[in-house]
Amino acid sequence: MDAAPDESRAFGAKPVGTVRSPLSDRSSAPKQGDEGAPEATLEIEPEFLPSLEGTAPGDEVLLLTWFHLADRTTQRVHPRGDTEREATGVFATRSPDRPNPIGLHRVTVLAVDGSRVRVSGLEAVDGTPLLDIKPVLSADAGDR
Amino acid sequence: MDAAPDESRAFGAKPVGTVRSPLSDRSSAPKQGDEGAPEATLEIEPEFLPSLEGTAPGDEVLLLTWFHLADRTTQRVHPRGDTEREATGVFATRSPDRPNPIGLHRVTVLAVDGSRVRVSGLEAVDGTPLLDIKPVLSADAGDR
Repeated sequence: MDAAPDESRAFGAKPVGTVRSPLSDRSSAPKQGDEGAPEATLEIEPEFLPSLEGTAPGDEVLLLTWFHLADRTTQRVHPRGDTEREATGVFATRSPDRPNPIGLHRVTVLAVDGSRVRVSGLEAVDGTPLLDIKPVLSADAGDR
Repeated sequence: MDAAPDESRAFGAKPVGTVRSPLSDRSSAPKQGDEGAPEATLEIEPEFLPSLEGTAPGDEVLLLTWFHLADRTTQRVHPRGDTEREATGVFATRSPDRPNPIGLHRVTVLAVDGSRVRVSGLEAVDGTPLLDIKPVLSADAGDR
């Protein structure tokens, strides 16, 4: 009843799991998974294990995460934090600071052990909530 | 105070805009944008226009949408609705019915006119909330 106006049209995204990673803070995290990010483990919540059926080692998947440490009021940034570069709108960048701080990460599934999914290089810090896992489609890569 | 337990760890994603499309319902929508989906217009909310700076015609972008018509309790589906195929967990499919019904769509920006962004083939129905726009990176396509 007392919801702020800003939240009146909000959607309740919920964590289906949590990222476990040696990365402990944003300053040590690579900006992209292909820039030396370490392997990580996804701990899937028990209630969402049925959604994981069929996911197997070797799968190329897209992880959607919620950057819980992000500043959601940021709308303009210097690309990659480089103040020599002109500031631009966050929709033209991959800044984690943005109105809906959803991270998108392409990884390879390395192993699935019950509720634990091991994945290749992931730039999200330990404790980052996982929102979704999707298979990669050829259309994602621009193959039409 | 009376939030359901399920929502206690929810994140308030909010619409930064709305999809305007000739597609009026799910049954008429192609399953993927490269399967004959029509061009669409994104109407960006005025408060998020600063985030749009720098987005220009020709850009290849990923749209994140919220499938507001989805069934969030669905965890297993027959791929592409084909009951001849064995049911599998939604994380191994692109079903819009999933715990967090976030749509991911690769499109080309065709025109930007103030708060209106025209994009190529998009399989989201009219009225679908837009959560985010991200530039495509080579890593999304698996180029490493």
